This record gives sequence, C-alpha cells and structure tokens, in this order.
Amino acid sequence: MKIAILGTGAGARQHAARLSALGHQIIVGTRDPEATLARTEPDMMGTEPFALFLAAHPELTLATFAEAAQAGELVVNGIDGANAVAALTALPADALAGKTLIDYAVPYVYQQPGDARYPWPTPWGEMPRLDPVDTDSLAEQIQRALPDTHLVKTFVTQEQETVVDPAEFGGGDHTMFLAGDHEDAKTVARELLASYGWNDIIDLGPLAAARGLEMYAHFHTAVGLALGGRFGVKIVR
Amino acid sequence: MKIAILGTGAGARQHAARLSALGHQIIVGTRDPEATLARTEPDMMGTEPFALFLAAHPELTLATFAEAAQAGELVVNGIDGANAVAALTALPADALAGKTLIDYAVPYVYQQPGDARYPWPTPWGEMPRLDPVDTDSLAEQIQRALPDTHLVKTFVTQEQETVVDPAEFGGGDHTMFLAGDHEDAKTVARELLASYGWNDIIDLGPLAAARGLEMYAHFHTAVGLALGGRFGVKIVR
Repeated sequence: MKIAILGTGAGARQHAARLSALGHQIIVGTRDPEATLARTEPDMMGTEPFALFLAAHPELTLATFAEAAQAGELVVNGIDGANAVAALTALPADALAGKTLIDYAVPYVYQQPGDARYPWPTPWGEMPRLDPVDTDSLAEQIQRALPDTHLVKTFVTQEQETVVDPAEFGGGDHTMFLAGDHEDAKTVARELLASYGWNDIIDLGPLAAARGLEMYAHFHTAVGLALGGRFGVKIVR
Repeated sequence: MKIAILGTGAGARQHAARLSALGHQIIVGTRDPEATLARTEPDMMGTEPFALFLAAHPELTLATFAEAAQAGELVVNGIDGANAVAALTALPADALAGKTLIDYAVPYVYQQPGDARYPWPTPWGEMPRLDPVDTDSLAEQIQRALPDTHLVKTFVTQEQETVVDPAEFGGGDHTMFLAGDHEDAKTVARELLASYGWNDIIDLGPLAAARGLEMYAHFHTAVGLALGGRFGVKIVR
C-alpha cells in the first residue's frame, strides 16, 4: 500500500522504516524537503539529521506534506501536536478527504525554562503541559477540522520504538489501544497494528476516548522516568 | 495500627473492611455521623446506605472527620475530589500534622446533563471533567494546604474492589503506583500496599507525578467501558 507519513521526527522515522520493511511504499512528508535535507545538527529531541536517516533508507521518498498526503492511500500523522491542526488544514482539500488518517501526536505545549508551574524535572527540562486537555483532544480537533477524513487515534500509549515492533520488547505481551468514530478507519488501523505484531488491541470506542489516550502522556512520562527505560502496558482481565 | 478512613463511599468501605480484616483498628470519618446513619437510599453511585454496611461490619467505628483523623495514626482520604481540600483544611490543626495521609481521590467535576462538551456517554451520564488537571493535581493542592502532613497519592489507577485485594483478580499480576514528596510516608503506603497483596509497586517519584495518576482516570474509564468489567494494568519491562 502507498502510505504517507507526515513528519520527520523520531516516531515518524520508526513508522516509515517499519512499514517499508513490511513491503509498503512510503512517502515521508515534510514542510520543506530542501530545508529538511539541509539540516546537519540533531533536533531538540537529539534525533540525528533526517538526511542521515534517509541515506540509510534509500527506499523512502521525501516530499512535501501535500505531495505525500495526496499520494498516500493511508496517511499517518507524525506532525507534532502544536502544529498538527494548522499543517493538516493547510493541505489541498482532496489530499485527505475520504482517507484514513492515523494520529499519534500528544498536544504538548513546551514551557519556558524556569516556569514555576512545572517543578518536575524531565530529561527535556521542564514538564510540558497539554493543550487541549480533559474536555477536548487534539484528535477531536483534527477530526472537526477535517470532517471528510476518517481519523483514528492510536500508538500514543507506547514509545514509538516499541509501537512498531512490540515483539522486540517484553515478549510482546502488552496492549495497544485505538479510538475513532469511523469503523472502517479503525479496521485499517487494526490491520496495520496486527502487521506490526500487536495481538492485544482494545477498541476504546468513540474518538472522545482520545482524551484519555493523550492525557495518559504524563503517566507514561512518570513511569518512564521511574524505570529509566522502555516499558509496555498490559491490560490484565 | 489505628487507621482513619475519611469518607463513607464505596472505595472508603473497601479500605475499611480490608484493613479491619488485616487486624487494624478502623475509625471511619464522616461529616455528620447521624445524617450518614439516617440515610436509607443508595447514593448517586448506587452504593447501599452506610448503616447497612456498618451493620455487616460491627468492628468498625463511625465518627466525625475530626474525631477519626485525630484518632488515626495513619489517615486515608476517601473524601471525593470536589470536597477534599475544604474538608481536610477544616479539621483541627493537630488532626493531620506529622501524619501520613494517603489520597486516592480523582478531582472530578460533575457536569450538568446535556453539557455539549461531554458527548461521551458513560454509565453515570455525562463525562466529568477534572479540576485541577495537567499543571496541578488534587494531591499537590492538599499537600500545599497541609504542609505538615506527609501526603502519598496511590490506589487511583485501579478500581477500589481490586486495590484492596489484587490477588482476587487476574492472578494478582498487575502494577500499583505511588507518588509523594515524603519518603517516610511512601514507606508506610508501600507496607500497606504489600499487606493488601501488591508485589509490583512503582514509586513514580515526586508528588507532581500525581498529575499523571489523576489524569489516568479518563483512560481508565475508557478501558473499563470497552471491556465492560474489571481489569488491572501491568507494566511490562
């Protein structure tokens, strides 16, 4: 299948490499391909320049957001939460209409260093807040902005390294979640997750459940800091 | 040990009965003992009148919040999130000073029926929002209001029926979490959890991690609605 991955961050790269290895044709979308390729320094999260990643994965194609989305039969949103709605609504109207869009962004708002409301030290400095939170979610914002697109929220409860290959970690016996208002899109996401190796997938129901998935981020961060390493979450019945 | 349980809801009853069965002397605190005993109808959550519960547990003592807190060497807060800070700060100054206070409340704000921001039907009608959320937590509010008390947040990620006896469910192989700024209080909470049967307890560090534990509520609700029954969460390393 032709799959567009929008975004060039660490998570987007994991999905691009894994989906390509699974036999799909991957087009990675970025705002400005020339600028993306010109970068020679790691990004704010310490991720290596995209050009190095692309050199190691010559089977991938880099294009603009619009070119990638238009080419993709399935689209994965890897644009960061603060920019996702603006970037997705700036696409040509036909780029996402009628398509399944898988979203895994956390709507983090990064604070200024020293913001007294965020006393909890994290590896990236202060603790980011979430916007929206509680009574709305980024997933619902995207769905409202793109009513002809079939949005699914998933992946978000796990680090991207293990989302794409759960069997590589902890024996693979952990649980993945999805939420969305379109059953056809959830079926597509379920098949993609199964191809990654997920065998315990819980459908949380309507897209409003994405609130819980996005708000899970602070819990996830706390557990990660406490353990100092990767982990999975298993729902025990 | 003399343990005060503040509150008479379903969760408070689980802890009172279980801690009593474990050999502790339990004083249950309520705002107005006479009014609590006079109720003959189930509460808004469908919990049976407290007088019936007390008749089945004659080893428990019912007292005012102040009497219970003053008598307790350890205090468990089972007062609902919307009322907890007001009720706890209304206690005599010596009732909680220097003591460990275990808090498991979720700071739910219940909405008016039909509130359009809460389209997600839940068994109790609309979806409650959380206040505080994201940049603060109820646990931190309580700790700031009671600086001489040693607060621990725990229990909150699991239904109370299984918090008090994890081995009764799913083979007991799931994970419990705690957070707090006082190591002595976390040690007390850890021992109590171990006596309940928890053998996988993760210390999330400072009390700011209670944000993640309280915000976990929407995720927990979504999973519970999806599964239609009780569940546990296991952190897979």
